[in-house]
Amino acid sequence: MDTTSKLAINQITTRDQWTLEQAINGYAHQQVYGISVWFDKVREMGLKNAARQLRDAGMTVTGYCVGGILSARDGQQFKQRLDENRRMIDEAAEIGARCMVLISGGIDPDSRDIDGARNRAKEGLAALLPNARAAGMTLGLEPLHPMMCAMRSALTTLELANDWCDELDGGPELGIAVDVYNVWWDPNLAREIARAGNRICAFHICDWLHETTDLRFDRGMMGDGVIDIPKIRKQVEAAGYQGYHEVEIFSQRNWWRKDPDDVVKTVKDRYRRFV
Amino acid sequence: MDTTSKLAINQITTRDQWTLEQAINGYAHQQVYGISVWFDKVREMGLKNAARQLRDAGMTVTGYCVGGILSARDGQQFKQRLDENRRMIDEAAEIGARCMVLISGGIDPDSRDIDGARNRAKEGLAALLPNARAAGMTLGLEPLHPMMCAMRSALTTLELANDWCDELDGGPELGIAVDVYNVWWDPNLAREIARAGNRICAFHICDWLHETTDLRFDRGMMGDGVIDIPKIRKQVEAAGYQGYHEVEIFSQRNWWRKDPDDVVKTVKDRYRRFV
Repeated sequence: MDTTSKLAINQITTRDQWTLEQAINGYAHQQVYGISVWFDKVREMGLKNAARQLRDAGMTVTGYCVGGILSARDGQQFKQRLDENRRMIDEAAEIGARCMVLISGGIDPDSRDIDGARNRAKEGLAALLPNARAAGMTLGLEPLHPMMCAMRSALTTLELANDWCDELDGGPELGIAVDVYNVWWDPNLAREIARAGNRICAFHICDWLHETTDLRFDRGMMGDGVIDIPKIRKQVEAAGYQGYHEVEIFSQRNWWRKDPDDVVKTVKDRYRRFV
Repeated sequence: MDTTSKLAINQITTRDQWTLEQAINGYAHQQVYGISVWFDKVREMGLKNAARQLRDAGMTVTGYCVGGILSARDGQQFKQRLDENRRMIDEAAEIGARCMVLISGGIDPDSRDIDGARNRAKEGLAALLPNARAAGMTLGLEPLHPMMCAMRSALTTLELANDWCDELDGGPELGIAVDVYNVWWDPNLAREIARAGNRICAFHICDWLHETTDLRFDRGMMGDGVIDIPKIRKQVEAAGYQGYHEVEIFSQRNWWRKDPDDVVKTVKDRYRRFV
């Protein structure tokens, strides 16, 4: 087995350089056959066209990004998000994604009700489970880093994601996406990865730069930061996860500015050495 | 009792505008008689002079900032930090601070060993307890926000701070500083505040701006963000804390640029309305 046979790249890693079509070709050209795709890029390309080209290139689609954002109090906004998520579930099924990645949504800017935001997101998630089940799609609930709590994700820990999965009592249509960037700081990480077990439907990797400069768009390439990625990979695998290792790097000041072929080359090299 | 009788201001809130002497006078001028001070500002003023003027102005010194940073692997660095902390404990005692605030320190830039960093910090803390005991000083261990894990604090949660206090088995010389900014996102917050109980030796307040732009220096004024401060204050008080509410705002783009008298005025106003 090739050492990179489990490597996937989230197309956000080449967001500013490549369309989806270019990413499919660019990754496949370097023998990377796992890809995670974003809904806006899929729609730009056309759903059926994207599905066909992904298939023709022999791509495994490790994730469809990013659904959820279900925490709004406003009834109309909430309903719009449910509708949008239902559309995305169908799209994810059409392109054969292994899961659709969901984030909970943050806290309304005029609110201070973190518990309310969490309950609303859970309510939305519960409403989507029948749709996911019908489509044979797994919803991969992804806790984000606590620094994203206000803006993007009141779901701040893997422990809470596990709690929600317990409460919602989903079957295979409810999973958890573990991203090292979001969870590496957590003293309870090993325990909660073991607890997540077979719920883990995606494993995302990148690195935390020691002197990071931005809350969202300054992720590091594996090896450039302080995360012990192999340690977390082994925990995730010991919990039962056998899927792809998906490199997902948001990087405004660095990787989004580089030649995308070089980015893919670097990803492969660093994956071999630091994952 | 005046509604602001428990209000203290951490002088970092007027860091760029005022020396310690100016802060003492500026706060007292508006009847704020609680202050938390920083070692560099104290030394700039002269320790004995600072102690005398704080006393003469009738100030309660709610904290001496900031010690700790004990996680370095390098033996010489570690020893230097212990020496520096011992000096600070004596300074804190000299100015009559209610506690000396400690942070654990982050992860060495060339390391990926978060467990090692945590153990090293605990080792350092254990080494300082006899000094604190001898000086009658409380070390206020402050867990920082997980986004500070690499740079400043491998101690990322209140739960872990409680665990360390259990392990170190300190007496009154070992406490915990709770800052709403660092802990508000934590699903286990209520439980861990109750568990901290009488260990809580300081309570810091400010707000989390919904669209915050910086990892360290973009804290918000109470009322401008999404933290339910009264809820956390009540939890802290129910746990037994009866001390000051200390406003601590790092704010490069906003409050550090304003007229400091206006900052104090705003602090008082917002304290009455949002704490």
